[in-house]
Amino acid sequence: MTDSVRTRVAIIGAGPAGLLLSHLLANAGIDSIVLDSRSREEIETTIRAGILEQGTVEILDESGASDRVRTAGHRHDGIELRFAGEGHRIDFAALVGRGVWLYPQHEVLKDLIATRLAAGQDLRFGVTADHVEGVETDRPRVLATDAAGNAIEIDAEFVVGADGSRSVARAAVTGSSTGGYFREYPFAWFGILTEAPPSAPELIYSNSPHGFALISQRSATVQRMYLQCDPELDPNSMSERQIWDALQASVDGHDLLEGPIFQRDVLRFRSFVAHQLLRGRVALIGDAAHTVPPTGAKGMNLAVADVVLLNKALQALLLEDDSRLLEAFPEQALQRIWKAQHFSWWMTSMLHVAPDASDFDRLRQLGELRTVVESESGRRYLAEAYTGWPLAGR
Amino acid sequence: MTDSVRTRVAIIGAGPAGLLLSHLLANAGIDSIVLDSRSREEIETTIRAGILEQGTVEILDESGASDRVRTAGHRHDGIELRFAGEGHRIDFAALVGRGVWLYPQHEVLKDLIATRLAAGQDLRFGVTADHVEGVETDRPRVLATDAAGNAIEIDAEFVVGADGSRSVARAAVTGSSTGGYFREYPFAWFGILTEAPPSAPELIYSNSPHGFALISQRSATVQRMYLQCDPELDPNSMSERQIWDALQASVDGHDLLEGPIFQRDVLRFRSFVAHQLLRGRVALIGDAAHTVPPTGAKGMNLAVADVVLLNKALQALLLEDDSRLLEAFPEQALQRIWKAQHFSWWMTSMLHVAPDASDFDRLRQLGELRTVVESESGRRYLAEAYTGWPLAGR
Repeated sequence: MTDSVRTRVAIIGAGPAGLLLSHLLANAGIDSIVLDSRSREEIETTIRAGILEQGTVEILDESGASDRVRTAGHRHDGIELRFAGEGHRIDFAALVGRGVWLYPQHEVLKDLIATRLAAGQDLRFGVTADHVEGVETDRPRVLATDAAGNAIEIDAEFVVGADGSRSVARAAVTGSSTGGYFREYPFAWFGILTEAPPSAPELIYSNSPHGFALISQRSATVQRMYLQCDPELDPNSMSERQIWDALQASVDGHDLLEGPIFQRDVLRFRSFVAHQLLRGRVALIGDAAHTVPPTGAKGMNLAVADVVLLNKALQALLLEDDSRLLEAFPEQALQRIWKAQHFSWWMTSMLHVAPDASDFDRLRQLGELRTVVESESGRRYLAEAYTGWPLAGR
Repeated sequence: MTDSVRTRVAIIGAGPAGLLLSHLLANAGIDSIVLDSRSREEIETTIRAGILEQGTVEILDESGASDRVRTAGHRHDGIELRFAGEGHRIDFAALVGRGVWLYPQHEVLKDLIATRLAAGQDLRFGVTADHVEGVETDRPRVLATDAAGNAIEIDAEFVVGADGSRSVARAAVTGSSTGGYFREYPFAWFGILTEAPPSAPELIYSNSPHGFALISQRSATVQRMYLQCDPELDPNSMSERQIWDALQASVDGHDLLEGPIFQRDVLRFRSFVAHQLLRGRVALIGDAAHTVPPTGAKGMNLAVADVVLLNKALQALLLEDDSRLLEAFPEQALQRIWKAQHFSWWMTSMLHVAPDASDFDRLRQLGELRTVVESESGRRYLAEAYTGWPLAGR
């Protein structure tokens, strides 16, 4: 038996992109349904790092989606770039008058889910989208299956694929579930959670002959740190002592406060942009459209920038029958996406040590880091990208 | 029969670095001998491009070495970065209040040679340095041979290797004539000289799917242009029509003024830094110490920066018996050298299309170009490097 429902916008994926879009559409009086194959608990407890650009925080706050970031998040007015045994602060506040917020992604999701449910959003967990039909018609459909195995058919005026890097919607737009531009990296991040006080007030991005390390924070008692590693590394192959020694060597000259390590994982990453973002009445946003390496913290922020653009385009389409913004959406979104892809690649390349790097490459890299930190323009160029370029379409 | 001469500083190489150093030392009352295996005519007629940083022009002018650059050279207050069919001016004057001068390197050499000879400099053409001895003593010697085959032994208090990328002096410093850090590039420049009026008032650095092109100027009636090419290209394998079509396609949207092509050459390039710049009483400067890709025009300017530092160090050593500046010379010179290596690599990477570039690489490159030109900080960061960082030691 097929359960059939109608809505204006069917959104596949209850991540930051899908939930925020449903919120902004609702603010404009446009109904939507949001589906996610995961349970609410899984979404809310999958711990993911989060650095929110100021523009992202403003959107969450001004739209009424979440103001908790301002109280429960931590504003950071800079980062430290560390190399050759010395730290160099990139002072965002002084350089660009903007900052970022350390606020984990799952906290954003908790806020968004609570806000949407309180507003009566049709938000269905444990519902898996199987297929998108009628892509090039005015009534596209999502065929889905709920946790009990029942088929659901969602008739909509527009379908949004916000279903992450393994997007089901992508095939409907690009003609292939994998089709896109991509780049692999010959390293990954070995991440740990440790019970220790913060080793620094702000993030430290460190380059050393041993490779890249990132010293991040979570709370007063729990810290998150990352170390460049081989993508094939077994996270359990290192003792706690070995991990601390490797981390300490990678931030040469900055003392880390150690504690018990209670979580370890290896994060592989790549750069990806789907060949197309829009086909007929189906659009891709967030990780379904693009993924970036974590260096530079652009992932969630780029998803929010997509949402801001698509929200305006869908309002024009569905409230005023004007498709011009929608037609302009891919080109406009791609401008920012490729800038963010470049920034993420640049931060990754400038800070990691590739396994095949020559001595020339390594010394050039130090020459680059020195050029950036010694120049106010260089620091500002980096700060502009890190804190986020202005959001078009707000 | 060996002719034996004494001097305070023996300088191997009558290029910009060696000649300018002899001039600055003479201003401080320190005698030197300058040798070069080439004839004066060969040095003065080997046509090489030249973009002089403002600091380079100031050194030439203020030291009395050459003021002709200010009248016979052309001040450029910007360059054009061209990509995706559009030009974007990098306005040096507005961004950093500085400029560069288009003034060919052989003109600088003519000025320096005339100035040095008028001042009574011992400047010997057609004399080939064969070997440097006594490197770690207070009386290093250069063993040389003149054009007639006579041996010359030059006893000095210091020896400077300013003898270009095939330096003889390098072996005395690094222990190997080739020893250094280097990087090859999978492309070269196909350069032409054409009888035509200028196609643009300033240099155009252009990126296109066809690769890199540089539209430069020489005079009102002769222009210099370059096209990215395979290092193995036979310069005579293309017709004039094919060359113009390729150039025009590479600067898509900007009309080139065509004329007869009367010179063609393929310029291969690489990045190189010698493993050491100083050993005992022998130092390397200019191309003997480092070479850079031509993109970004750092070659001659980096040589001048070396000279400014070494001049001060030799004055302290020879006039005050103080070796501290000399001991600091390699580290201080290398700071700028690696920044310039990075800048040259960056301009090369950002503008050329590597033969193995993926679609991702190409789109990321356009994302980078867009990020740079859309940001005043990005444009200023580039302008600072192009017009030249402040010269230490002036």
